[in-house]
Formats: sequence, structure tokens, C-alpha cells
Amino acid sequence: MVQQESLLEVIGKVDKFPYVPDSNYYSLIAHDEITQIGYITKSIAHHFAEELALKVDHEARTVTIDPGLDTLEKRESVFADMANRFRKIPEFDIAVNKGWRNELYTIYNPSQVPYLKVERAFSILMGVITYGIHLNGYVPAEKSNNGKLKLWVQRRSATKQTYPGMLDNTVAGGLGYPHGLWETVVKECYEEGGLPPAFVEPRAKPTGVLLYIYQQQGEGSIAQPEVEYIYDLPFDDETSVVPKPVDGEAESFVLMDVQEILLKIMQGEFKPNCSLVVVDFLIRNGHITPESEPNYAEIVSRTHRRMPFPTR
Amino acid sequence: MVQQESLLEVIGKVDKFPYVPDSNYYSLIAHDEITQIGYITKSIAHHFAEELALKVDHEARTVTIDPGLDTLEKRESVFADMANRFRKIPEFDIAVNKGWRNELYTIYNPSQVPYLKVERAFSILMGVITYGIHLNGYVPAEKSNNGKLKLWVQRRSATKQTYPGMLDNTVAGGLGYPHGLWETVVKECYEEGGLPPAFVEPRAKPTGVLLYIYQQQGEGSIAQPEVEYIYDLPFDDETSVVPKPVDGEAESFVLMDVQEILLKIMQGEFKPNCSLVVVDFLIRNGHITPESEPNYAEIVSRTHRRMPFPTR
Repeated sequence: MVQQESLLEVIGKVDKFPYVPDSNYYSLIAHDEITQIGYITKSIAHHFAEELALKVDHEARTVTIDPGLDTLEKRESVFADMANRFRKIPEFDIAVNKGWRNELYTIYNPSQVPYLKVERAFSILMGVITYGIHLNGYVPAEKSNNGKLKLWVQRRSATKQTYPGMLDNTVAGGLGYPHGLWETVVKECYEEGGLPPAFVEPRAKPTGVLLYIYQQQGEGSIAQPEVEYIYDLPFDDETSVVPKPVDGEAESFVLMDVQEILLKIMQGEFKPNCSLVVVDFLIRNGHITPESEPNYAEIVSRTHRRMPFPTR
Repeated sequence: MVQQESLLEVIGKVDKFPYVPDSNYYSLIAHDEITQIGYITKSIAHHFAEELALKVDHEARTVTIDPGLDTLEKRESVFADMANRFRKIPEFDIAVNKGWRNELYTIYNPSQVPYLKVERAFSILMGVITYGIHLNGYVPAEKSNNGKLKLWVQRRSATKQTYPGMLDNTVAGGLGYPHGLWETVVKECYEEGGLPPAFVEPRAKPTGVLLYIYQQQGEGSIAQPEVEYIYDLPFDDETSVVPKPVDGEAESFVLMDVQEILLKIMQGEFKPNCSLVVVDFLIRNGHITPESEPNYAEIVSRTHRRMPFPTR
């Protein structure tokens, strides 16, 4: 028999970073020497200690950006150089060099104000918030063939670098500079799922945001704070428009009803953070209820964690 | 001109209790001498210090329930007696004596396991979680007279003890022993809004839960952790069924569109925690978007605060 986890256990593996961080973590502090913008592991802090632009205090467990880096331009120049040098450090070959995307992620400080743009792969080492969009494509109960609500579930390509072959939300993508949220939704719907803007734009709508802090498995235990903006997209029926793979990120798409999808979540077939997106959808739509789910309130608060950093 | 606050300011007045409590607060600890179940103010802790069943440590700022109170029955007997005696303390005449409801609220520890039932008015002094239900009655855009989504807004009776005359959600109520959530929804819909079970039961559905810690104004500054289960109830049109006052809690009900309701929230016309319920509804339904609301992510996380206590 396949092992099953409770929904709270599934969510605990995503919002895994401790609420009171242990001594393995250093705070990444902005050049104002006050505002925390990330969590850095001890081992990465030791690498950062060799950087002129960063002041590492092993006693206070802080990594502080040089107060002299007081403009966006200065910071971006220094961090672009740093990211490129880290590509050549063997320890970071997989994460930074092989993971290199030529895609810039924006860090905010204060909230809503761009503070620094860095290569996506390097931002992971900094333990800063990354942003993305996830979209739930669904056929409402009254429009499905058997009267049951169904979701369009993506199977990830077997050749993807991360979580190959696992189940995923209909469409998802990181928020790279200079793209806006809505633009990213429309773009990813087309690139990942072949859904044309003329179909998506009048139907998709924002329905919330999930916030959690992931902690990588294994020795590194890197902290990954993530903020995922959620969109829902109702389909008119099961057949007239369907998602299909375009850019190779997705291998296939399949319609699943609620029971099927919950089972696959509890059996660990979903990419972990995508489980949260589905659970949130099912809570908002009354398919997971305070009566059916004993950890209802805990699940809802764990998927909307308050970030200790400024946000977008 | 009427002063307007941002939505984040409105929410900050409800989720007002500091995330790192100051020295005005003592932790209420269960009889296991480990688990925190509430926050008590210093001034109330001084009153509790005279109780045999409570051990107050002013150094550690803890109020611990006597380890001897190791059954539900023992605890309830002791706290029922205590609540009755507090009715006679002049300082608590308004809160406990005048606020007395003959309604028992349940405290849980561990999560999902009833630990203690106490009179609603007295539970406020203990700074424990109180639970309730709030329901958004609405006419969907496609069924309203002018094609705009509208919500049924309640005006509270001018004679209510708390927040008289202010705007409120369609229906709301505390979760008193021994009533379940769904039972309370159906009961309050009828008692407060005259909506019959035959209308409510097939239409209402649970859509989430809000969690926040309120801090009373003024000298007392009592902490009030609240968990409010949210239900949505779509109406078929504007006229065939409408809520109307029954038990005198509500003075009237009026349909408002999104612009009107947001304005009244920002102008402070809503009972504060009811603003959060409406904002959550508007976020889930795409009427407040990450583009329209600069503090979108912060608002969502502040309205789903992780409780430092076991929950229902």
C-alpha cells in the first residue's frame, strides 16, 4: 500500500523552515544595517565572508551589505559580479552554474520598492523571497461530464531539472524582471499550456497569495522564502479548450476530480508547493471544510506565513 | 472630508497585538506547565495571583494552571467558580458582569481536544482564542440589477453592547458550546437575518478561516486571539429572498457594491474585524487584486496569523 500523509504533514514539508531559526542561519541585512532581507546558511555565510561588499559577523550571525552600496546601480553591479564568480565555485556548480537561467529576480526594500535585481540561481544562495504565479485551471461541477468539479493537473516533463515527472498546477512560473504578474500569467498560460490570451484574459482572475518558507533537504538546508500569487481559470467544458504542452516544460495535462487529486497529494505525487496551491483552491471552494479537515485553521495559517522581510 | 485609511491600516487595527509581545503580557500556561494557551495582561495577572488554582510568576511572566487540575471536570469546576467571583470585582463589572452571556466558550489543548469550557465574558480576561463564524451573503454580478457584484451588509442594532450602529457582515456569531460550526451558521442565519435553513443549507459553503490577535484599546490592552470561520452564501437575485432583522441584533440590511463597501471600510464605518471578512471575500473573488492593492501579500498574511496556541 502506498504511504499517505495528512495534508498538514504535506504542508509542513513546504513551510518547513523553523519559525524560530536555529544557529545554522545568518540574517542577510540590507545596506541600511537594519532591515533583514534574507536567511543565509552558515556554510554560505563563510563563502560570503570573503566578499568585500559583505560584512559577516559570526557572533551576531549577520551578513550585512556594505553601507556604501547606497544605490540600486551600485548594488546590482556588485552582485552581478559576485553571481558570476560563484558560478565557478565547485560547491555551487549545480545550484548556480547549472541552474543559471539568465533571469533576474527582484528583491524589495522597503516593501514595493525594488532594492536589487539578481540572477535567479544566485538569489537562492541569498535566501531572499522569490515570487511566482500559480494558476488553477478547472471545470466547474455544473460544466463537467459527471457533475463533479475537476482540475487540470500538469505532469512535469521528465527532463526538467527540478521535480521531473511530478504533478503540478495547470500553469506556474517565476516572476522574472521586468515582467508584471498579469503579464506572467498570460505568458505562462500560452508557453506552458498552449492557452491563448484570448481565452485566458477574460476568464482568469487573482484569488489570493500563498506565503511560506521552504527549507532545502540535505546538508545545505538553504531557506527559500516564497510568495506565490494565485489565479483561477474556469474552463467552459471539458473539451472545447484544453491545455497542451508547448515549450516542453509540461509533459501532459489531465483532468482530475477532488478525491483523485487529494489522494495524489497525500501520496506525494505532487511537486510539494503545488500541493499547497490545490489545497488552498479546495478550501476556498468549500471542498475541504472545517468539518472534513481536522487541521483546517493550522493549514490556512501555515500557507499564509507572515514574511520577516519586506515584500513586493 | 471624511478621513480614509488604507486597507492595511484598517487590518493593523484588528491584528493589532504585537508579534513580539512586550512586558505588559504574561503567558497563560496549561496545567502541563508547558503549553501556552493565552496572553494575560499584567493587571489581570495580579488579580489571578490571588487564585489558588493559578500560579503567577512575575519574573517569568507566566500564569500557570495548577498541575493538580488534570481533568476537564476539575478545571471547569474551578474556573466556573472563579468566573462567578470575578463578576463581583468592580474593575470587571462591565467586562464580566455586564458582559455575562451564560454562554460557554471552549479552549482546546492539544489542538482539537477540549481542555476547558468557560463563560464567554470571563474567557476574554484569559486572553484565549475565541471562535466564531462570519457569513458573506452576496448577489453575484450576473444576477444583480446593474451587473455588479453586491454584498448584503448588516447595520448593527443601536442598542447592542458592542459597536452599536456600525456596519457588519451579513451574519456572524460566536461559537458557543455545544454548537458545531455548520449548526451555528444555519442558526445565526435564521436568528440574526431571518434566512430559513431551506434557503441557507443548500447554498452556503465554507471558504476559509481568518486568524488574528486583537488588542483592546485603552488601559487594559487585553489580547483577544480570534479564529473566524468564513462562509459565503450566494443569493439568486436581489429581491426573492432578502435578510431581515429577527432577534434585534441587526437593525437593517442593505445591498452594497464593491466600491461603496471599500469606501465604508476605509472610512471606518465597519465593525473592525468585519472589514477583514469583506476584504478576504473581495481578494478571493478577484475584486481586490495584487495590482490594485499595494499591500496585498501583507494583508493576506496578517489576516491568517499563525496562533501561538493550540486551536480547535
